[in-house]
Amino acid sequence: MKIQLALDRLTIREAIQIAKSTELYIDMIEVGTSLIKEYGVTSISALKEVFPHKTIVGDIKTMDNATYEFDLCFEAGADIATVMGVAPLSTIEACLDRAKRHGKTVMIDLLNTTDEQKEALYEYKEAIFCDHISKDEQELAGKKVNEVSFNDSLKWAVAGGITTDSLKGMEERKPDILIIGSAITKAEQPEEVAKIFKEIIG
Amino acid sequence: MKIQLALDRLTIREAIQIAKSTELYIDMIEVGTSLIKEYGVTSISALKEVFPHKTIVGDIKTMDNATYEFDLCFEAGADIATVMGVAPLSTIEACLDRAKRHGKTVMIDLLNTTDEQKEALYEYKEAIFCDHISKDEQELAGKKVNEVSFNDSLKWAVAGGITTDSLKGMEERKPDILIIGSAITKAEQPEEVAKIFKEIIG
Repeated sequence: MKIQLALDRLTIREAIQIAKSTELYIDMIEVGTSLIKEYGVTSISALKEVFPHKTIVGDIKTMDNATYEFDLCFEAGADIATVMGVAPLSTIEACLDRAKRHGKTVMIDLLNTTDEQKEALYEYKEAIFCDHISKDEQELAGKKVNEVSFNDSLKWAVAGGITTDSLKGMEERKPDILIIGSAITKAEQPEEVAKIFKEIIG
Repeated sequence: MKIQLALDRLTIREAIQIAKSTELYIDMIEVGTSLIKEYGVTSISALKEVFPHKTIVGDIKTMDNATYEFDLCFEAGADIATVMGVAPLSTIEACLDRAKRHGKTVMIDLLNTTDEQKEALYEYKEAIFCDHISKDEQELAGKKVNEVSFNDSLKWAVAGGITTDSLKGMEERKPDILIIGSAITKAEQPEEVAKIFKEIIG
């Protein structure tokens, strides 16, 4: 399992600091949607510049205008960009097309998708699928458990309130990528917490 | 009917220029998702600064993290901000709550919502509902006709490839807001086209 550090609700400077202090223990750096919407794609290029050897995920959450948004994101330095699974399939297919042309990867965020939508999306075998409990579902609706059944032929990421405690359940599911945000970014010692995550997953 | 000019795939400077040249004929200025994602919410504050008396719509297309995104958007100067109807209801309700606290308004974008989702959303009578054919649906899937049945007790906006020709059908539907983008922004003479739109709707 790889660890993707999700950087949200931070300034670009804070994001870089946290990524620097934890970089020994993380594999991928996610420039969160809040950074992109607050500062633009310069947030992506700033992180890629400091961490050229890390995989950078631009959580741009595309719903439309796929070519423009994905080109922006990849040209800023993202290696992976996200599209919402609830978007029209024409948008998702355009994202896959742009990723292919750039030699990069799409992550499809399954937030609030129906079972029927999921089935259609699983045809896109080159994508990474993200089983995602959103911040608002966690904080406002009290949702805590990821429920999507993994399809073994696909690559999986899991996101949403993952802590060192909740990680035990994850080990059985064995996602390819664990997306961890505030458990690290809001810790008093982000480095220590990142190290514990890394030790648990081995 | 009011005219909302949607500014997308432009630099902030170009967006301001087009809004200036057409301001006599438009009622609302939409800072498009592409501007927000490319430049951040500074795109909203830049437009509000030049057009303090126009209604500014921040097309932030929130899917999660509603409080943070809506506060960002309203504090930057938006009078209206958008949330996706396909988002979890906890997100949409948080957007409505933030709008109320700021004395501002939510526009719910119905892109790709199911009939069941629409019915649930129509309970939020303080929102503006946007019947939206996305750019990708228009450009990649050839979709051209807005299909949502208006519920007369709600406020309606219509978006997606509206031209002076397609406007005739709109007059029968009588949405409160016509969202017009590239028909004006890509015209050789944006001012002339905006004037024609204004004359047609009277």
